[in-house]
Amino acid sequence: MTNMRIVLSYDGTDYCGWQRQPGKRTIQGEIEAALARIFQKSIALTGAGRTDAGVHALGQAANFKVDRDMPEAELFKALNALLPDDIRVVSLDRVPAGFNARRDAKGKIYQYRIWTSRAVSPFAVRYVLYWPYPLNVSWMRAAAALFAREGDFTGFSSNRDLPAVRSVVRSELCKKGEELVYTVEARGFLRYMVRTMVGTLLEVGRGRIPAAAIEEIFKDKKRTLASPTAPAKGLCLVKVIY
Amino acid sequence: MTNMRIVLSYDGTDYCGWQRQPGKRTIQGEIEAALARIFQKSIALTGAGRTDAGVHALGQAANFKVDRDMPEAELFKALNALLPDDIRVVSLDRVPAGFNARRDAKGKIYQYRIWTSRAVSPFAVRYVLYWPYPLNVSWMRAAAALFAREGDFTGFSSNRDLPAVRSVVRSELCKKGEELVYTVEARGFLRYMVRTMVGTLLEVGRGRIPAAAIEEIFKDKKRTLASPTAPAKGLCLVKVIY
Repeated sequence: MTNMRIVLSYDGTDYCGWQRQPGKRTIQGEIEAALARIFQKSIALTGAGRTDAGVHALGQAANFKVDRDMPEAELFKALNALLPDDIRVVSLDRVPAGFNARRDAKGKIYQYRIWTSRAVSPFAVRYVLYWPYPLNVSWMRAAAALFAREGDFTGFSSNRDLPAVRSVVRSELCKKGEELVYTVEARGFLRYMVRTMVGTLLEVGRGRIPAAAIEEIFKDKKRTLASPTAPAKGLCLVKVIY
Repeated sequence: MTNMRIVLSYDGTDYCGWQRQPGKRTIQGEIEAALARIFQKSIALTGAGRTDAGVHALGQAANFKVDRDMPEAELFKALNALLPDDIRVVSLDRVPAGFNARRDAKGKIYQYRIWTSRAVSPFAVRYVLYWPYPLNVSWMRAAAALFAREGDFTGFSSNRDLPAVRSVVRSELCKKGEELVYTVEARGFLRYMVRTMVGTLLEVGRGRIPAAAIEEIFKDKKRTLASPTAPAKGLCLVKVIY
């Protein structure tokens, strides 16, 4: 058996998320369908993690095992020829038999884009949250820094995953032209965690809650204290670290 | 009567071009529909020029006249609220009564993007020609320079416009990372002219015709000598100069 790792970019707009679901258009489903056509048999794809409906990826990773040997360049070409335009294989390489894209991921980097000027480019609109209202970026920066910790993130998730202790090693907000870009890195995330953190940062930026409220949410561990979940379209899985 | 100029960005992917056509989704049609809702009457929009189906714009310009005075900021907001996400008003200003977006345009800048690496980003795929094959960029650069002239461009158009003399003041090819970006500026262009010029540059880059063949096409003025028209999706109207 050959174990192959693929790195993928996709525009998640028109998909019901990563995970295969009967009768729905999903990223995993499309790739498995392409693999099935190439190898003439069903092949299971293991993703580094699931992305929700509407979430994008610059560098999602996955692996699959095949019993037929095919040159990487040929497989790369065949996959991209069969996949829809909005899912692209960026790279593909042979990995040791024991490699598992989910289990072996050492970290994941997500970015969330907030478009703050009143005119949003039609070329960016699928990939950003449109927010042409005042935001205090200093408050948001201070709040973002509070997420960089090992702690119980129950208050920032849909509260179905246990254990809820996660280690966020990077959490920062940058201003890039018309955009605010929030970057966060952790080995793993809870469900809706990044989007709830962004929702909270927006509440802080609007002056609805002080940055210090984040400490309360960490202590109380109640989802109800945290802010609305930010929309999926602004979120992108930038990289999976191995 | 107030005369208003608007600058527009749009993703042309899902439109049958600029020009209003009954029963079809067009850029002009969408904007006129939004204006009709705002002013409760039919308002004709004059575009600086027509863009073909699938062609994009960063800075298309247009003007329209209204007999009701509305603050610019309010009109800007109302238009962008009513327009679909893939058409955005970038700016809007009052102009003298005699201003006409088409007649008064002093120049137009178009760009054509050619994606040359084997993996095209799903975020760029709607806006580039995917061309993962060898191209000789030096030959293409030399050929591009030959288009910068005042001359009869009949050989590079669909041959329905007369007179066919146009004055191209800028024609250059730049390499930007994975992309070749062709930029061309003229006061006006013939139908399919930029896309046919790009098609010709690609033939030169592939070694199918020498750059010097461009001189022949200028002399012979026969469309059949020129190369296939490059696809619409790579083309973008960057700016209209007044």
